Amino acid sequence: MTVRAVYALTGDVRDARVRAEALAVEQSHEFPPELAPAKAAPSRAHVVEVAEQGPDLALATIAFPDELAGAELTQLLVMVFGNCALLPAVRLVGLDVPEALGAAVGGGPALGVAGVRRALGVAERPILATALKPVGLPTEDLAALGRAFADGGIDLIKDDQGLGDQHWAPYAERVPRIAEAVAAGNAASGHAARYLPCFDAPPEHVEARLRIALDAGAGGLLIVPGVGGLPLLRWLARNTPDDFVLMAHPALLGALAVSPTAGIAPDVLYGSLLRLAGADVAIFPSAGGRFSFTPEECRAIADGCARPFAGLAPSLPAPGGGMRPDRVPELVDLYGPDVALLIGGELHRDGDPRGAAERFRALVEQAA
Amino acid sequence: MTVRAVYALTGDVRDARVRAEALAVEQSHEFPPELAPAKAAPSRAHVVEVAEQGPDLALATIAFPDELAGAELTQLLVMVFGNCALLPAVRLVGLDVPEALGAAVGGGPALGVAGVRRALGVAERPILATALKPVGLPTEDLAALGRAFADGGIDLIKDDQGLGDQHWAPYAERVPRIAEAVAAGNAASGHAARYLPCFDAPPEHVEARLRIALDAGAGGLLIVPGVGGLPLLRWLARNTPDDFVLMAHPALLGALAVSPTAGIAPDVLYGSLLRLAGADVAIFPSAGGRFSFTPEECRAIADGCARPFAGLAPSLPAPGGGMRPDRVPELVDLYGPDVALLIGGELHRDGDPRGAAERFRALVEQAA
Repeated sequence: MTVRAVYALTGDVRDARVRAEALAVEQSHEFPPELAPAKAAPSRAHVVEVAEQGPDLALATIAFPDELAGAELTQLLVMVFGNCALLPAVRLVGLDVPEALGAAVGGGPALGVAGVRRALGVAERPILATALKPVGLPTEDLAALGRAFADGGIDLIKDDQGLGDQHWAPYAERVPRIAEAVAAGNAASGHAARYLPCFDAPPEHVEARLRIALDAGAGGLLIVPGVGGLPLLRWLARNTPDDFVLMAHPALLGALAVSPTAGIAPDVLYGSLLRLAGADVAIFPSAGGRFSFTPEECRAIADGCARPFAGLAPSLPAPGGGMRPDRVPELVDLYGPDVALLIGGELHRDGDPRGAAERFRALVEQAA
Repeated sequence: MTVRAVYALTGDVRDARVRAEALAVEQSHEFPPELAPAKAAPSRAHVVEVAEQGPDLALATIAFPDELAGAELTQLLVMVFGNCALLPAVRLVGLDVPEALGAAVGGGPALGVAGVRRALGVAERPILATALKPVGLPTEDLAALGRAFADGGIDLIKDDQGLGDQHWAPYAERVPRIAEAVAAGNAASGHAARYLPCFDAPPEHVEARLRIALDAGAGGLLIVPGVGGLPLLRWLARNTPDDFVLMAHPALLGALAVSPTAGIAPDVLYGSLLRLAGADVAIFPSAGGRFSFTPEECRAIADGCARPFAGLAPSLPAPGGGMRPDRVPELVDLYGPDVALLIGGELHRDGDPRGAAERFRALVEQAA
């Protein structure tokens, strides 16, 4: 069995074959091929195909022996995108992982789309998501916001990624208080909103902070894998309760997908790699907001979250970054129903977050 | 006290002031400023200066209240490079962190340049480094290579970043055996070479694999923070013996520094951020090899490893990626003596790794 990765090579296509061969070496042996001992041959990657796409672009498909990943996500990442991360004209644009390896490196989202829907009691419509912010508010204010959003019918109420353990609302104080407020909202409204604390714990605090979230009855976590690492996301997916929702935030990580010629294509990053690591929900910067993806790139991300991949459950794409309630119909049209629509600051526009949440929900229900 | 970050904004400078103001909000409140509650004002970042550098480039200096980092590396990273990672025309090019915060988030390299020199018994000359590879060799072959390099006078003998826990040379077998071989080489030669196993453990294996390395008498670790996360590097810097050498490999992480208009400038990434996280030695792709940095960028990286920053010890820049022994004089001329020259595959060119190591060492001693 092999892992297949497709790389877009920008530059004169007459060099593409030589560059593809060098890349196969770079990503496996990183050793002059003419000097490599024969007994190491089984660990070498090989070029399967080089397809010219025009004078300055070729797609190189490289096959890696799946044993090279050593059955761990860490080496799988080094294998498909280790040193090539350093190359400004090579971009990882496709990835195919055998099911057995997908299972071995972590098994993907524990919930996936169906599990998140079950946990939230939402059968078919798009999921509603928002963020508690700005950082700097005291715990009570954040808890009041959490309550208002739960009352108003938001499904996933996450901490802003900027909420860590600052003195304004320390983690150990904030998480139980907001979880309690959201639970009170659910009890009053009959909704099943989930509170997802921002989980940015350094290694020495991972277990204690996870315990606080679990004891508080949080419904999942907001993870920042660009900071804490994809292996920590994977660990959390394997070491949290079955119905715990893991949402990944693109801070830092998203830098891998901004260059059109380098890094990782958005659908592979937000779709394939975050699914491999176990994200149930993948936040990404949507077209039409403060960031730069095109509608086509956003559609591709949604497709990367849903398409068959390594035998893993699909994840929910969560477009965000400057979304507004009035764009709900357009967003539903673009993404379809299997989406978590993330609207943050705009729900505060008229000083009535509960009312704004209700209107957001009504728009989603109409559009679905 | 404030953290100051400088961002290069590419695009019409007439928009630079507005973009800088938006960036200060994005990186702190991520909330419409006109709606932000007054009590959250102390957590807001502010624009200090916008300096035009031509029609299409401006440098924006932003001041962050240092409390916004919550005294943790994780939030410091989100603060200075969280959402702006998603912007294709914003690049983090400068960073200034108060000493108290530098100490609070981890204290930087435990050894630094002076400590690495002490550990290796190398007073003034450049440090010699190499990698054990290719992946796919059995443990005995890798151990024989380690012995040859120790005999030949290499100081830092690291695993290739592609050596994980694959069946060809499993971690628990490989690490003790290579450490033993390098120790035997030192006993015979009187050198103080260090073996640095590749440490790519997923969270559930971190403690056991670290124990294996310590019990084996490894002299440090090769870390891949782009995979495992900068906070794990920081944790290792704080939870390993005082004379343990931590070397950071740029796999994945290096993608942050390849776009000229986005991501993080190489000197900030390989210098400031890796120092903050505790790297004693920072590998980067040197000019003149298989990768793309210019000599000026490489000099800037070396400067970023050495200049006063947050009260932290300087780190050793380790240029690699296709270096050859015959380039030693030129490399020493470019980087000066405080450098770890990393030569991998080329030491295998004539089938005599010990002889190649001896010649590499002689060249370094002549050039110093």
